[in-house]
Amino acid sequence: MKENKYDNNSFFEQYGKMMRSQIGLEGAGEWHVLQKMLPDFTGKTVLDLGCGFGWHCRYAIEHGAKSVVGIDLSERMLEKAREINSIEGITYIRKALEDVDYPTEQFDIVLSSLTFHYIESFDEMAHNIYQWLKPEGQFVFSVEHPVFTAEGTQDWTYGTHGEKQHWPVDNYFIEGKRSTTFLGESVIKYHRTITSYLNALLKSGFKIKEVVEAEPSEEMLKQFPEMKDELRRPMMLLISVEK
Amino acid sequence: MKENKYDNNSFFEQYGKMMRSQIGLEGAGEWHVLQKMLPDFTGKTVLDLGCGFGWHCRYAIEHGAKSVVGIDLSERMLEKAREINSIEGITYIRKALEDVDYPTEQFDIVLSSLTFHYIESFDEMAHNIYQWLKPEGQFVFSVEHPVFTAEGTQDWTYGTHGEKQHWPVDNYFIEGKRSTTFLGESVIKYHRTITSYLNALLKSGFKIKEVVEAEPSEEMLKQFPEMKDELRRPMMLLISVEK
Repeated sequence: MKENKYDNNSFFEQYGKMMRSQIGLEGAGEWHVLQKMLPDFTGKTVLDLGCGFGWHCRYAIEHGAKSVVGIDLSERMLEKAREINSIEGITYIRKALEDVDYPTEQFDIVLSSLTFHYIESFDEMAHNIYQWLKPEGQFVFSVEHPVFTAEGTQDWTYGTHGEKQHWPVDNYFIEGKRSTTFLGESVIKYHRTITSYLNALLKSGFKIKEVVEAEPSEEMLKQFPEMKDELRRPMMLLISVEK
Repeated sequence: MKENKYDNNSFFEQYGKMMRSQIGLEGAGEWHVLQKMLPDFTGKTVLDLGCGFGWHCRYAIEHGAKSVVGIDLSERMLEKAREINSIEGITYIRKALEDVDYPTEQFDIVLSSLTFHYIESFDEMAHNIYQWLKPEGQFVFSVEHPVFTAEGTQDWTYGTHGEKQHWPVDNYFIEGKRSTTFLGESVIKYHRTITSYLNALLKSGFKIKEVVEAEPSEEMLKQFPEMKDELRRPMMLLISVEK
């Protein structure tokens, strides 16, 4: 996440046009799943790693959180967050996730949405988050699914008539950097296996509560028929664990 | 698993030629991973679901288990098991896994190797195993990885020169029957997602201890260079849970 494409003009502009940026949580395909996995926020202290425009920070406060710290590396994302999701109780901080440092037992809840596939070491992250959480603290996050990140191009295999044939998986056990294209820009992401995600959490001491490969809701499939392709391969992995 | 290809002559013969049949556990690519996930067998009562030739039953007894029940639907598999892995403490029983029934808290350990992708309902299986286990009982099993079973053909996508291009994933969220070819015979398997495997276990009350997508050991990669293709997509999923 030390790479920061979100402060690049064209990238930021494109990102701003995505449904999830325009209308917030309801515009994110996986939100209907993530929402059900979130803990009760009442009176809780929350940390959001990779907060972007601050939609999850706002949601936490609006659902009773006492305070929320939203961290992001992008100046422009935080500018926008302060503009559209600035409410009492939220503090936005600009920092690379690798540089975040807290004393032990500072937060009740740690959230992170689609951010960890930008960081190189998830082991270290999981270990740190475990320390920052109070006993029985909750950690809920989403990442791009390893099936989605493995091969690297992040695109379907197409037939001669341009039809989507299937999703290619390759180099699954070769973890590390993938150079891919997102919103017209070349972006570095880090692929790791499901084994690595889960065992980093287990080794840190977390108890696994739920693991969900998000799929579109029936409602979304009705409203956007092209979303049926989302049933063909998993794109997002959502995990909920407890200290 | 009510379908029983293993009693078909040509299928049984082909199966008998596989490394895992000929030399036992050491001939199975995932054994080096599974072995590390197995609990201490000393003095324990063990149930092996889909025991095949009985190699895991033998291993359990040789590592201190008090008694082992090996269940399989194939008459010929059990015949072979009785021939080559018949030692005191092992009882082999012919039964479909769906028909297995025990009172609660009968076993300390339940094992199953590459069997559950033949059964239609893993939810029911997980629920039953939870009941059959004593408190703090261990359940360790392997299945074909959902990435391996999703598309259905269980084969690579090949280029014009016959080279392996990548592994195709399709219909990932469409769970259920897959008609595939194994050892020259058409076989019915059941695809389900990682979400389904893990959440069936969690909902049954199990605590997840380890989830490993098996990859070849460095030794195997040296000995059989063609195994480097096994690093390109996950083929087996190994899970260890505790009551």
